[in-house]
Order: sequence, then structure tokens, then C-alpha cells
Amino acid sequence: MLNSAHSPLLIDLYQLTMAHAYVELGMEDTAVFELFVRNLPATRGFLVAAGLEQAIEYLEQLHFGSAELDFLASLGTFSSALLARLENLRFTGSVHALPEGTPFFAQEPILRITAPILEAQLVESRIINIMHFQTLIASKAARCTLAAAGRQLVDFGMRRAHEADAALYAARAAYLAGFDATATVEAGRQFGVPISGTMAHSFIEAHERELDAFRGFVAAHPAGTTLLIDTYDTERAARRVAELAGELEPLGQRRAIRAVRIDSGDLAQQCRSVRAILDQHGLRDIRIVVSGGLDEHAVKALVEGGVPVDAFGVGTALDVSADAPALDMAYKLQAYAGEPRRKRSAGKATWPGIKQVFRERGASGEILSDQVALVSEASPGEPLLVPVMAEGRRLAPPPALAESRDYCARELRALPAQVLELGSGPTVYPVQFSAALQALAAQLDAQLR
Amino acid sequence: MLNSAHSPLLIDLYQLTMAHAYVELGMEDTAVFELFVRNLPATRGFLVAAGLEQAIEYLEQLHFGSAELDFLASLGTFSSALLARLENLRFTGSVHALPEGTPFFAQEPILRITAPILEAQLVESRIINIMHFQTLIASKAARCTLAAAGRQLVDFGMRRAHEADAALYAARAAYLAGFDATATVEAGRQFGVPISGTMAHSFIEAHERELDAFRGFVAAHPAGTTLLIDTYDTERAARRVAELAGELEPLGQRRAIRAVRIDSGDLAQQCRSVRAILDQHGLRDIRIVVSGGLDEHAVKALVEGGVPVDAFGVGTALDVSADAPALDMAYKLQAYAGEPRRKRSAGKATWPGIKQVFRERGASGEILSDQVALVSEASPGEPLLVPVMAEGRRLAPPPALAESRDYCARELRALPAQVLELGSGPTVYPVQFSAALQALAAQLDAQLR
Repeated sequence: MLNSAHSPLLIDLYQLTMAHAYVELGMEDTAVFELFVRNLPATRGFLVAAGLEQAIEYLEQLHFGSAELDFLASLGTFSSALLARLENLRFTGSVHALPEGTPFFAQEPILRITAPILEAQLVESRIINIMHFQTLIASKAARCTLAAAGRQLVDFGMRRAHEADAALYAARAAYLAGFDATATVEAGRQFGVPISGTMAHSFIEAHERELDAFRGFVAAHPAGTTLLIDTYDTERAARRVAELAGELEPLGQRRAIRAVRIDSGDLAQQCRSVRAILDQHGLRDIRIVVSGGLDEHAVKALVEGGVPVDAFGVGTALDVSADAPALDMAYKLQAYAGEPRRKRSAGKATWPGIKQVFRERGASGEILSDQVALVSEASPGEPLLVPVMAEGRRLAPPPALAESRDYCARELRALPAQVLELGSGPTVYPVQFSAALQALAAQLDAQLR
Repeated sequence: MLNSAHSPLLIDLYQLTMAHAYVELGMEDTAVFELFVRNLPATRGFLVAAGLEQAIEYLEQLHFGSAELDFLASLGTFSSALLARLENLRFTGSVHALPEGTPFFAQEPILRITAPILEAQLVESRIINIMHFQTLIASKAARCTLAAAGRQLVDFGMRRAHEADAALYAARAAYLAGFDATATVEAGRQFGVPISGTMAHSFIEAHERELDAFRGFVAAHPAGTTLLIDTYDTERAARRVAELAGELEPLGQRRAIRAVRIDSGDLAQQCRSVRAILDQHGLRDIRIVVSGGLDEHAVKALVEGGVPVDAFGVGTALDVSADAPALDMAYKLQAYAGEPRRKRSAGKATWPGIKQVFRERGASGEILSDQVALVSEASPGEPLLVPVMAEGRRLAPPPALAESRDYCARELRALPAQVLELGSGPTVYPVQFSAALQALAAQLDAQLR
């Protein structure tokens, strides 16, 4: 098992066949590629840009080692000129991008790469692969954050995330978009995301009696823990928690029971009855955590129903973005050798030229609308794409993840209220395309190729 | 960016809080956990087991290094006894599993781990994470394979797979389940999956004229290549391909144009008109490859419509299993210290005890039905779970992936025809649960905990 995340061979083969052709044909001019989402999923009113930090790391470290060059040579299809070029290849271009945590919409460039065409083309698949996944998850997580209305959210999705990297970066992207913690320990180590964990049903089942399991777990965790109460009968388990609290009270250890977790069944009904049982026993400070198949709609229903829940564990629905497991994200050539370019394939035509997104705000900073325009145009509003790399080097140290998280929260609050509704659709937010951009597209269409 | 795939910290925190409690409470007995899918997605008639090889690799190499132990110590919540235990931890248990490529159904154990409870519990999240993803993708890929009815299938999904590992293992799982190739170069290197690639629209757009792009690409790839013909106008591009073929014919280079690819629009209509144009010019041997938003249903429609297509590139729908991006896969304690165990949570009750799947076959090897029974029962049929690890060591070298691929193809062909229909549902195939298993479940339910 090699570390595929760093492999320069984690690309589509056509990037190498094109690189081969660029070398053979002497095509060395500068290309400008932009990354954008063609259309939002039907169930998204906005997306949240994420993954930029990992994209920059990828570009910074990109190189072909001898093992990779040997493998390519063994295929027998690539010229020694290409292999020599790859041996010395480093990313030497510049990158402009939306800061992580920025809300964005269909057809808006979120990252732009300007580099010799061989380099800019070679990184296509992996740049999409990195940015697509974290953007997908941050966008889903932001919806959960809105639904939770301030209650605590924890990422529980590692087991059904799509392999190792997805688990790790889902935790990062969810935290960026407002989650409070993750169960994934490695995300705590690599990104400083707060980690949170309780117990599994198997711990209960490994004991002859549920109360013994509770007693043993609390004894092992005197500083405080959460007890899982739905293994056999949730209400009976809640009474056992109260019984245990009664045992611990005279020892001054009652506070070791911080919370209970319910993971199945009718969560609203069980939370109400468990809350009542705990309250009857004077255990008002024991919190209730729920999990088990939750998504933003279930979270919203519990919150709006006034159900006594303190925290939500959201798993699979978050980590695979279950209702929309992919975005229609593309990375397209917009200019080559100084000339604007346009793809005209049916249903996939692109806005040509080098572009910028200008965001208009009201007096209190509230977000009103966007205009996508040529970068050369004078356009009102704040330009969203900012320079992050030049000549292959990062322009500034990465912002702290917690800082990007605060920025994301502020920007989400600034969006129009109807865009933030869970039922909001892809076209609620107003995005305009400048007259000059429309004229350029028409002009390119009129040219025969 | 560390290699998270190998990190022992790629687990849910609760596995460590439980491990801590097991150490504190001196719980050292043997646990038996089984991995299974509770219910199949509504759009699946069967699933295909995959990922075992990576699961074994994970268990073989599992250990905590000093960096991981230091991180855990820094959390301040774990005892030095736990840290000492983790420092020396290796997986010492045994594993039984379905061979990769075996079709299976709901509630059937596909992997069983027998080990000291701390070890068996610790690996829960990552074992699910590994087995879930490849099983998910192999199951989706098998449907595409059935739909393609012998035409060529290539995995194009890397860019929208969920980060690096997902891209790599999707290529592996798709190949196992019948795909012919992948575009992902790294999967060629790591798993020997045949790799395949053509050109992107950007290559065409980087030229002033489409014909120049075709001419240049063929010149750079005289051994044979595929030309992408939908950048501007597909039929006009097909005529340009014919024009180029005419230029190359007297030079003896005409065979360099092996195929054309169409990636957008009405694929059936375009394939027919492109085929006609090529045939009119005597270019019957130039193959047609289609791609662009394909799934098994689109593949089936093209095949059954008699559309002249030679190969399909399937991308996003495959690599994220778009219609069912997660399986309800769980890893549950079935026995501890020699006693069967059962979870009874609402909607999530498990079949207790150590189990085996017995598959009944007809005279010609055709698969008839399965029975899930206690491993101790005498049951007719072939036992599907076979030993793969004992005392922490692999029992045999891994089978070649191509061998598992052949096995998968044979087993799929042996399934009842109605199970193989794309519209087949989760309950079409007959799975029985033995009388002894039902009696054990009832007996455990009757015991109070």
C-alpha cells in the first residue's frame, strides 16, 4: 500500500497522452484553466468552497520520482523527451482561488491555474479530486449547521466515508462548515479538529448486565463520559443511568455521567421520555446525544419540534453527502497563448476567457448578488478570487482552520435568508454574467474552428 | 499530509475510550465480531464482496508508533496502562471471509474477526471503511458489467471519487467486478489494472483549428489513439477524422486512428450518424467510445437499442455509486467469552452467535439459495466464509486480482437470472435463517439484561 495521495500518477492517463503530444508538438504556451461547478444539485441553494489548502500542498510537492518514471517507461508508449520533461517537472504556475469557507454558486470559478499548458493540464484530475470532495462535504455540513441552530454537531461518518482520505477530509470539511467535533482521531492529530467519542453497543453486550457495563465504563472514565442507552430498552436503560447516578452521588462521582446517547428508534419520543426520567431524578445536567441515520432534515425536525436534544452525531449522510454524492465540477481551459477559449459541447458549453467573481454587499455587509465578469473588466463588488500561489510558491502561510471556520460562519450568516432554507434550490441566489463576457462567448461562437 | 491509510489513529475515538475501559476492567476475553450489510439498497438485487486484500494488509501492519502514542498521551485522557498496551499491540486474531468477488445478500456475514476484545474492537471503523467502499463500488460495477453485455467498460471516475484512496480503490473494485480498464494511472501501477486514456477537450481548444489538433495528436501517437470529437460539432468532427484518415492512408499511417470518443449530447443519435460517416469513408475499423454521465441504465439503453458503441467510459456514477452512495454495513459483536451476544436496538437487532453462510447449488453449479446458520450446525450447501488469517498472519498469498475477477464473473453468471436484472430488488434472492439461529435469538431475547 503506497501513499496514493502524494503519487504524481494519481491522474487520468489522458493527461500523460496529452503531455506527450504537447512535448512532441512543442506546445509550451501559458494556459489558464478554471475550476467551477456547472450546475448545483437540485437540493442545494449554495455550495461552500473547501480543500484549497490540500490543493496547494499537492501543487507544492508535485514531482515524479524514479519509481514513477520507471513505471511510465515500462508502458512503452511515452517518448524519452516526455520522461525527461517529467523528471524535472515542478509546478511553476500561479493560482487564484476563493478562500476556504466562501459560499459560491453555479458557473463561478472557484480556482484558477495559470501555467505552461503541460503543467496546468497534468494536475486536472487531482485538483478536481481534492477540491470536489471537500467542497461537497463542506456544502452538506453547512446545511446541517444551519439545521442544528446552535446545538452541537459531531461527525460520526468515518466508517462509511469512501476509504481513508475521505474519512479524514470529511472531518476537516465538516469542521470548516460549522461542525463542533469529529469522532475521527486522525483528524484531531492532523488538523486539530476537536475529537469526541463515547461507546459502542458491543461494550454493553460484552457485559452480562447493562448496568454493569455502565458502572464499569464510568469507573474507567471518572473525568466524564457518555453512556449509550439503546442497546436493549432505552427507557429502562435511562432508569439504570439514574440508578447508577444515585450510587455515585455519595462518592462525589455523579458528574462522571455527562451525557447519554440514543442511536435508534423514534428519537423524538425517546428523547422526551429519557429527558423526563433523568429530570425526575434530578439529573437535569446530563445531556442527550442522538445519532443513527441523521441528516440535516432529521436534525431540523428535532430542533423545530422542541425535542430535548443537546448534540447530534451525523454520520453517513454527511460523509458521503448522501442526497447529492457528487458535484458537476469541471476544470476547463479558458485561455491559451493569450487567446480566450470555449468548449461548445452540447449542455457543457463554458464561459470563455479569464474571469473573476464580483460579490455585491449591502450596507451591513449582507450579500446581495454576484456578477461573473472578465478579469479585465471594471466591475462593482468585491473580487472573490485572490492570489494564493505565484511561480509555484505559496504566497502566505495557510490560515488556521479555526479562522477559516469563523469566516465561513460569518459568510453563511450574510447570505440572503431564502438561500439558506434547506428547501432552497440552485437558482434562488442571483448570479449575473457580464455583458462583455456574453459578447466574448458570442464572438467565439461566430468563429469557425 | 501524512499517509492516513496506514495510521492506527484512523479510528473513531470511542474505540480508544472502550479500549481504555477494557484495560481498566481487565476484560481480555476473546470476542467474535461479524461484518454484514443489514439491508440492501432499494436498487440492488445483490452485492459483491471486495476489499478483503486491503483489510488483511491493514490488520497485518497495524501498530502504534511513537508519534501516535505521543499524540494520544497529549490528550490527557488515557492511562499509561492503555498506552503501554497500545505500544505493544499487534493484531493476533483470526479472520474468516468471503473471497473477493463473491456475490452476497443482506444479513450474511462477509467477514468475521476472532480476537481479544480490545483488538477486535479497535479495528472496527477502519475494517468497515475498507470493506464498505470496495464492496459498494464492486456492486455498482457488476451492474454496469451486466448492462454492457460484453462491450468494453473503462473507469473514468477518478476526478469525482471521494479523494485519493477512493479513486484508487474504485479502479480496483471496478476491475474485480468486470470492468476492462481504468483511466487512473496509479491503479495500473499498484494493482496491474489495464489503463486507458485518450484526450480532453482542452487539447482541442488549445489549437486554432480542430483538424490541426487531430493531426497533431495522431502524429504524436503513431501507435494508435482515440480522438475526441464533440468539442464543437460532433458530425463535422467525424468528417474531419475521415479527412485526416484520407491524408494518412497513402503514408500507411491510417491505423493510428483507432477510435473516436463522444462525451456529450444525444449519444445514441450521434453514435449512429458518426458510425455512418465513418463507414461511408471505409473506416469501419474505427471504434466508437462514449462517455459523459453514463450509468448502468444508460449503458443498457444504448446496448439494447442496438446503438453502434464499442466501449463505455463510466465515471462519477461508478466511483461514488451515485444511486446508492453507502451501504448499511455494520460490524457487530456476536460472541464474547464463549457466549453468544445480541443487539436488540429498534430496527437494528442482530442475529446472535458465530455464523456461517451455506450456499446451495444446482447440478450445473447454478446458485439456488443461501442459509445463514450457526457455524456449529450441520447445514447443507457450501460454506462461504473461509479462513484467511490465523494468529495475526495471512494463511496464503493473496490471489491475483485477475483471478478474483474471473471468479467474480463466474459467480455472477451462476446467480438466478431475475437477481441479475437491473430492476431486481433486495429481497428477490432467497436467504433463510436456520431454525437453531432463530431459537438462539429468541432465547437471548428472553434473558433479561
